[in-house]
Amino acid sequence: MRLSRYFLPVLKETPADAQIASHRLMLRAGMIKQSSAGIYSWLPLGFRVLKNIERIVHEEQQRAGHIPMLMPTLQPADLWRESDRYDAYGPEMLRIRDRHGRDMLYGPTNEEMITDIFRAHVGSYRELPLTLYHIQWKFRDEVRPRFGVMRGREFYMKDGYNFDISREDAMYAYDRHMVSYLRTYERLELKAIPMRADSGPIGGDDTHEFLVLAETGESEVFYDAAIADLSLGSRDIDYDDRAALRAICEEWTAPYARTDETHDPALFEALPEDRRRSSRGIEVGQIFYFGTKYSDAMGATVQGPDGKPVPVHMGSHGIGVSRLAGALIEASHDEKGIVWPEGVTPFHCGIVNLRQGDTDCDAACAQIEAGLIARGLDPLYHDRDERAGAKFATMDLIGLPWRITAGPRGVKEGKVELTSRRSGESEEMTVAAAIDRVAGIYGV
Amino acid sequence: MRLSRYFLPVLKETPADAQIASHRLMLRAGMIKQSSAGIYSWLPLGFRVLKNIERIVHEEQQRAGHIPMLMPTLQPADLWRESDRYDAYGPEMLRIRDRHGRDMLYGPTNEEMITDIFRAHVGSYRELPLTLYHIQWKFRDEVRPRFGVMRGREFYMKDGYNFDISREDAMYAYDRHMVSYLRTYERLELKAIPMRADSGPIGGDDTHEFLVLAETGESEVFYDAAIADLSLGSRDIDYDDRAALRAICEEWTAPYARTDETHDPALFEALPEDRRRSSRGIEVGQIFYFGTKYSDAMGATVQGPDGKPVPVHMGSHGIGVSRLAGALIEASHDEKGIVWPEGVTPFHCGIVNLRQGDTDCDAACAQIEAGLIARGLDPLYHDRDERAGAKFATMDLIGLPWRITAGPRGVKEGKVELTSRRSGESEEMTVAAAIDRVAGIYGV
Repeated sequence: MRLSRYFLPVLKETPADAQIASHRLMLRAGMIKQSSAGIYSWLPLGFRVLKNIERIVHEEQQRAGHIPMLMPTLQPADLWRESDRYDAYGPEMLRIRDRHGRDMLYGPTNEEMITDIFRAHVGSYRELPLTLYHIQWKFRDEVRPRFGVMRGREFYMKDGYNFDISREDAMYAYDRHMVSYLRTYERLELKAIPMRADSGPIGGDDTHEFLVLAETGESEVFYDAAIADLSLGSRDIDYDDRAALRAICEEWTAPYARTDETHDPALFEALPEDRRRSSRGIEVGQIFYFGTKYSDAMGATVQGPDGKPVPVHMGSHGIGVSRLAGALIEASHDEKGIVWPEGVTPFHCGIVNLRQGDTDCDAACAQIEAGLIARGLDPLYHDRDERAGAKFATMDLIGLPWRITAGPRGVKEGKVELTSRRSGESEEMTVAAAIDRVAGIYGV
Repeated sequence: MRLSRYFLPVLKETPADAQIASHRLMLRAGMIKQSSAGIYSWLPLGFRVLKNIERIVHEEQQRAGHIPMLMPTLQPADLWRESDRYDAYGPEMLRIRDRHGRDMLYGPTNEEMITDIFRAHVGSYRELPLTLYHIQWKFRDEVRPRFGVMRGREFYMKDGYNFDISREDAMYAYDRHMVSYLRTYERLELKAIPMRADSGPIGGDDTHEFLVLAETGESEVFYDAAIADLSLGSRDIDYDDRAALRAICEEWTAPYARTDETHDPALFEALPEDRRRSSRGIEVGQIFYFGTKYSDAMGATVQGPDGKPVPVHMGSHGIGVSRLAGALIEASHDEKGIVWPEGVTPFHCGIVNLRQGDTDCDAACAQIEAGLIARGLDPLYHDRDERAGAKFATMDLIGLPWRITAGPRGVKEGKVELTSRRSGESEEMTVAAAIDRVAGIYGV
C-alpha cells in the first residue's frame, strides 16, 4: 500500500479527553474515530489490526475443535425472559422496540440464543460434545464509557458455548478453552494470566479471567511471581488429549493469582514474600462453567444413553477482540508511539523514501515494495512528499515493527537501512538483503 | 472437517412458512435459523458461505483501490438530522434511545457517518481521490420481512463511498465500482445485469442496480438479450486506466436494461422483437453518484487547487452480502438441493464412506481427507454411521460441487468414485487421481 493512496489521518495533537496511552495512540495513529460516547469507527489502520486479532482468535478456536458460526446482534426479549435475565440485566442492556412494538435488545452476550439453537436442533447425547462460537458486535450501555475501545459500548467479542453430557465433559471443554486462550495471547505476544474470578451475571462456579498486567488496568490483581514465567512456547498441543490439557491448566492455575474480587489475603501472605506481586490488570477474556443453569431454565435436554432426558452442561467463554487492540497498545508502546508485535501489525514493514522524486530513491523504494509483496508481505510505503523527520515520526507513531529507509547517499552505494521499531537499531544492507531479512522475520 | 465433529442440523421436512427455494433450502441445509422475524443466525455451514462471499467482495474492492474500514452498527441521530434524513427515513429506521436518553439508530446505510469522518480528517484536494468502504451489519425494519435472508431486517452489506474533487472524477469512481461489481458477480458465477434505476431515499441522478434474473425476484425487469451474453471473462483490468473502465461500462450500459421503476416502453419496443426480454430480478447491488448532496448539507469541503473550499462529489455503492447467499441459491439449485459454485462452496469436496467402520473404507476415506487437506482444500467427510442413501441426500442437499465416494467393492480394487453435483456424473478412479482432479479444479 502506498500512503498517497491510503487513508491514514494521523493527528499531531494529543486528544484532550483520552486518559490512557492506548486511547491516545489509537486516535493519534488514525486507527479509530469516536462517533458517539463509547462507539467507534475503525479507520483503515485500526481495521487491519482488528482483523488480524480476529484471525488469530478464529485460528486458535478452530484448532481446539470449536465451530464458528454467527448470531445476529439483535435478540428477542422473550428469550431473555425464559432465563429470567431480561429484568435482571439492568440498564446496561440496550432495550429496543421495533415498529410492531416487539421488545428486542442489542445482545450483550448470547447464552440464551445459543441455547435456543441447541434445543431446536440437538436431541441426543450422541451429537455431543459440541462447542459453537461466534465473533460478533455486542453492546453494553455502560454508564460512563471511557478508555477508548477498552471500555466501549459497542464492542467486538468472541463468545463460545460448550454443550456436554456431564460435568466432567464440560470441564474438558473448560480446559480446551483455557489452553486455546493461553495460545491466543501468546501469539499476540501478550502476557495474560488466568485468575480465579467472580462469575457475575453469567452465573456459575468455575470461572477464570485472563488479565494482562498494565498500570492502566481497572482491576487490582495479586499473584505469585512464578506464574509470570510460564509459557506454552512451541509445545505441541493435542486437543484430543484430555490429560495433557488438564496438566497445562493445573500448571497455570496452581500458583496463586486472583483479582481483587476473589483475593484471599491469608493465602497470598502464605507465599514467600519475594514471590508476592500485586499490580493492575486489564481483563481480556473469561471462561465459565455454569452447569445446567440455562439448560434447566430453557429446557435444553438431550436423550442420554439410557434414553432419559438429561439437561446439558454448559459453559461460556469470551475474548474481547476490540478490547485486545487497546490492551496490546497498553502493553507495547513508548513515547514515540505504538510498537506492534509482528503477529498483529497492520503492515509488515514500512518503507521510507528520504527524497521523494529522486529517480534512484524512487526506484529503490519501488523495488523494495515489489520484493516484499512478492514474498506475500504487505508493506506500507510512505511516498508522500514530506520531510524525513515527519515520515519517521508517522512510522514510529503507527508502530510497524520494521522499517526500510532509502536515502540518496545509501542508494548510490546500493544500500538501504533496516530499522527495528522496538530496539531502534538500524543496519545498512542491500535491497535484496533487507527484503530477505524481513521475509525471514515473518517466516516467508 | 468430519461431520461427526461438526454441527450440521439438516431438516427432513420442508419448513411450511418458507415461500421461495433459497429460504427453504437454507433452512433445510442447516445454514440459518430464524431468531425473530427477518433476523437470522448463520449456522456453521451458512457462516462459511457468508464468509466466502465477503472475502470475494473484499478482494475485488481492494483490487479496485478501495480502502476497507469498519463503522459501528449504531449511529447518533444528530448526524441524520444534519442531512434531514432522520425524519424523512420513516418507520424502516430502527430508532433507539440509550440509558441517557440520547436518540440513536441502527444504521440502515452510512452516508452521514462517512461524511462526518471525511470532514473531520480531510482538508485538501491533494488527499483525493478517496474511496472508503466497509462490510457491516445493517438494519431496516421492514414491515413484512420475508424470503429468508433475501429480505431480512438485520442484513450484512458492503457499502462504499467515494470522495472526489469533481463530477468527472466521481464518475471515474462510479465506473470503478461498476466494473468491480461485475467482476464480483462473475467470480460468484452469477449473471447480474446493471440496470438504470431509481435513486430512492439515497438521492442522486446516476444510479444503476445489479439484478440477478430469477423467477422469485421482487422486481420486474426488461432488457435487451444482447446484455445477457456479455462477460468480462479473463480480461486484464487496469483500474488506473479510466478510458478502459469507461469502455467496459459503456459496453454494459448501452443495451436496454431497466427495472419496472424506470422502464420506458417506447425505447423497449424499438428493440428488435427477438431481443426483447422481460423477467423478474433480484437486486444484489446498487451504485449511486449523488454529487454534493451530503457534502453540502454536512459541510464536507476541501481546499481546491485555487485555495478556495469546494464541496466534495460523492457516491455510494452497495452489495448485499447476506442477500447474495440467497440469490446464489435461487440461481443454482435443483430438486435435490443447493448446487454451489466452486468459488463460494462451504467445503470444497464431500467425502462419503459407504461402509463406516470397514477398515479399508475408513482408511481410504482418511487418505482422501488427508490428501485434500495437504493440497490446502477443506473437505467435509460424512463419517456418521448412516445408510448410503441418507448420506447422499445430505450431500446433495448442502450442495458441495464435488463428492468422492468410497465403497467396499471399489476400495478393494483401489478405486473410488468422483461425482459432480451439477451434472450428477460419476467417474471411477484411484484415490490419488481423485485428489489430483479435485485439486486441479480448484487450481491448487
